[in-house]
Amino acid sequence: MTQPLEGILETALYAADLDAAEAFFGGILGLEKVSRQGNRHLFYRCGPGMLLIFNPAETAKPVPAGALAVPSHGASGPGHVCFRVRGAEMERIIERLEAAGVPLESDVCWPNGARSIYFRDPAGNSLECAEPRLWNLE
Amino acid sequence: MTQPLEGILETALYAADLDAAEAFFGGILGLEKVSRQGNRHLFYRCGPGMLLIFNPAETAKPVPAGALAVPSHGASGPGHVCFRVRGAEMERIIERLEAAGVPLESDVCWPNGARSIYFRDPAGNSLECAEPRLWNLE
Repeated sequence: MTQPLEGILETALYAADLDAAEAFFGGILGLEKVSRQGNRHLFYRCGPGMLLIFNPAETAKPVPAGALAVPSHGASGPGHVCFRVRGAEMERIIERLEAAGVPLESDVCWPNGARSIYFRDPAGNSLECAEPRLWNLE
Repeated sequence: MTQPLEGILETALYAADLDAAEAFFGGILGLEKVSRQGNRHLFYRCGPGMLLIFNPAETAKPVPAGALAVPSHGASGPGHVCFRVRGAEMERIIERLEAAGVPLESDVCWPNGARSIYFRDPAGNSLECAEPRLWNLE
């Protein structure tokens, strides 16, 4: 049976403070914002997919009558996302984080030689930048 | 400034019951398992990225001394992931879910004509399958 799920189109993180999230993901990481809806969500394009940042206090509410029937969701506690970054670009990310005063929490060399760096967004989510060869995905 | 973040390499969901998660993501959705570590995590390949399912009771623990310094994380409550699916494949997914007794929670036609279906994994995460034109990502 072939695989009808071609890949991941949307990856979600949760953050209560969307202003802080926007300063971080747009301002520091430089992601391309697609839209923001008040204090509910902030959507970014990231390569062939989307990074969606939701305020769980809003998205956990039941869907209002008459709206599109998008099911509720909303997590708390630190989530995790890893961005795909190629070797030489890793230093550019590190420079941006340093310039913005965002500490690197960890810098890991995996057994297969791939490198990962870890840092936190303002909501405390664990973010990683890794070379795709970490997963043999080039 | 160009964008050094090429895309998302790892997307995470959280589930306390990894046996149930494995039956669902491997058995019903047919994702390709890369590895499982006991009751800690379950890793799947999904197209050009990875879907990582973590038991937050394990991943929220501090890193043991001597291990690779991978920062802790772990969320609770329903998260969200959307899979990229092309038109005709949507019906195959729906058939699989029906055959497995997984109810569709919602079937949405967005204003731009793209279709999304929604359902839950055993942990209660909100999963979606959507056509990439939802985000003008073809």
